[in-house]
Amino acid sequence: MMEQSKMAFGLAARDATGVLSPFSFTLRDRRDDDITLKILYCGICHTDLSTIKNEWGNARYPVVPGHEIVGVVTEVGSSVQKFKVGDNVGVGYYISSCLSCDNCKHDWENYCPKMVQTFNHSHPDGTMTYGGFSDKFVVNEHFAVRIPTNLPLDKVAPLMCAGITVYTPLKEHGLSEPGKHVGVVGLGGLGHLAVKFAKAFGAKVTVISTSISKKKEAIEKLGADSFIVSKDPEQMKASMGTMDGILDTASANHSLMPLIGLLKTRGKLIALGGMTKPVEIVMFHLMLGAKMVAGSLIGGVKGIQEMLYFAEEHNITADVEVVGMDDVNVAMERLEKGDVRYRFVIDVANTITISN
Amino acid sequence: MMEQSKMAFGLAARDATGVLSPFSFTLRDRRDDDITLKILYCGICHTDLSTIKNEWGNARYPVVPGHEIVGVVTEVGSSVQKFKVGDNVGVGYYISSCLSCDNCKHDWENYCPKMVQTFNHSHPDGTMTYGGFSDKFVVNEHFAVRIPTNLPLDKVAPLMCAGITVYTPLKEHGLSEPGKHVGVVGLGGLGHLAVKFAKAFGAKVTVISTSISKKKEAIEKLGADSFIVSKDPEQMKASMGTMDGILDTASANHSLMPLIGLLKTRGKLIALGGMTKPVEIVMFHLMLGAKMVAGSLIGGVKGIQEMLYFAEEHNITADVEVVGMDDVNVAMERLEKGDVRYRFVIDVANTITISN
Repeated sequence: MMEQSKMAFGLAARDATGVLSPFSFTLRDRRDDDITLKILYCGICHTDLSTIKNEWGNARYPVVPGHEIVGVVTEVGSSVQKFKVGDNVGVGYYISSCLSCDNCKHDWENYCPKMVQTFNHSHPDGTMTYGGFSDKFVVNEHFAVRIPTNLPLDKVAPLMCAGITVYTPLKEHGLSEPGKHVGVVGLGGLGHLAVKFAKAFGAKVTVISTSISKKKEAIEKLGADSFIVSKDPEQMKASMGTMDGILDTASANHSLMPLIGLLKTRGKLIALGGMTKPVEIVMFHLMLGAKMVAGSLIGGVKGIQEMLYFAEEHNITADVEVVGMDDVNVAMERLEKGDVRYRFVIDVANTITISN
Repeated sequence: MMEQSKMAFGLAARDATGVLSPFSFTLRDRRDDDITLKILYCGICHTDLSTIKNEWGNARYPVVPGHEIVGVVTEVGSSVQKFKVGDNVGVGYYISSCLSCDNCKHDWENYCPKMVQTFNHSHPDGTMTYGGFSDKFVVNEHFAVRIPTNLPLDKVAPLMCAGITVYTPLKEHGLSEPGKHVGVVGLGGLGHLAVKFAKAFGAKVTVISTSISKKKEAIEKLGADSFIVSKDPEQMKASMGTMDGILDTASANHSLMPLIGLLKTRGKLIALGGMTKPVEIVMFHLMLGAKMVAGSLIGGVKGIQEMLYFAEEHNITADVEVVGMDDVNVAMERLEKGDVRYRFVIDVANTITISN
């Protein structure tokens, strides 16, 4: 008989309907450098939705989504040094990388060719990875980070993916220096955190949105300095050449040239949203102001830990709507419509019903 | 009667045939902070050709082209501090800027909104600028640079535009640090200097070209380390993910995605060639490696001076074919066909026939 501690229970999608239903699975064996977590909270990212609906054609059912995990350590392997039983830890988008390539040596495990995603992916031994919509998790200690004690655990979960996705490019593109003017396109899970982090770095922050509906909230609640409706040519024109950088979190296909026009000389447009269609860029417009278009994807483990301590210092957490395990299918439907401000988080530990 | 010293003589295009013929004009008044040059050499850049043929629709005939100017100072205004009569100086793509905007304060006069181009442009008082295919030139001392004494004046002329155009992005994008792997697309006036500067900075340099015809010269004469034929999928595949940066000097319209594939994580593709059509970029490919596509246009005055001293230290000059004033129309025809290795330079002082 399987040891009780090796069995895990969660929610899985079985096909492209994306409907999640109860699913039991066996945790992988815990090695000496692994920790086992009891999962407390897990954020819901749009990637979870796209994957369970097989929008990118890469779903490997059954899919247990979830990669914004906060849990408490319940077991540690004999060689574990970073954590002890009872510590609160976070796990993000990936749980393994080679740790020896150039990317890993630069603390960019997120770009390692052998990076293993937290869910819907394969361990090096070929077994599937199952994500955080479940009660337990085994992970190598290197890929877990410490959750600062002063942060509320539900609101910190989205930092593990959405948070690091916006924090990394702000840091790596010099937008974390005080006094920069940072534009944020799109005000969802990523965008609302981009506003908070950029403000904490001392930037002037302008939200750029297709509709004026979020203006009041962007300014009064999130602390943005100004707001531009991207469909209003007058507003766009008035802001031309004013921004040091723009974090573009919108995933719907859209033109980048009007955004490039908002940049100062040497300004940077950083795409985080993963548009599916190619976009047209007029290279001469980049040349005329030494402008740059870049991409960025999550961040390295060291960066995640640094981001969490920065978040603690500046009291930055996500604005979340907490749901129970039984509410996840409804939450997914609402997420698809953009009906969430700004991130759903599952209260896993308090709402899961263990059937075994 | 006009003072003799105020009259200048050169070659001008009168219409979109681009045929150059003798042209006399009046130099602008020399102010206290101006110098007057006797022009010795002037490089021929593709921009000269495009402008006299009105390819961009902005020609203001008569057009006296030329913006890779080397001359000797013949007069100095009363407040001139940088130069004295007899000094060899260079003038590049522009001769004025506001000197007070953010760009100018950063020594990026090249991106000043009030930048005045050396030819085919207007002085602030509305009078036309006439370029270096002529015998004399008046310029504010700020926009002239000192030519190091050890450099041959004909071969240094192309550094004033082609040289700074490749030097600036190497420096500003961290590709001047030793040990980088730099790709150079296109082996013309810009590309051959890109190879020389990148090698002098200590980079491994790979030339990327549509045809193998320049391989021997790229490696044996210019010092490139390797050569890839961009139309050969096997060669391109073998070099995927190996380059820290690519200087793309090709002006013909071409796809950037194969080049982006050659970049390492955080690699930078820098467009210098001014493609006229928009290019399609798959943003997700930028995201997957935190890659960047940027533009760059010439450089600031301080950068030009620094580049010239660097060129002196590392004995970098352009490979040129020197022609006389009478040969310029033929040189333009050959330039149009790409028949030059790698830059035409006009020996102005020794071949000009002053008609007045």
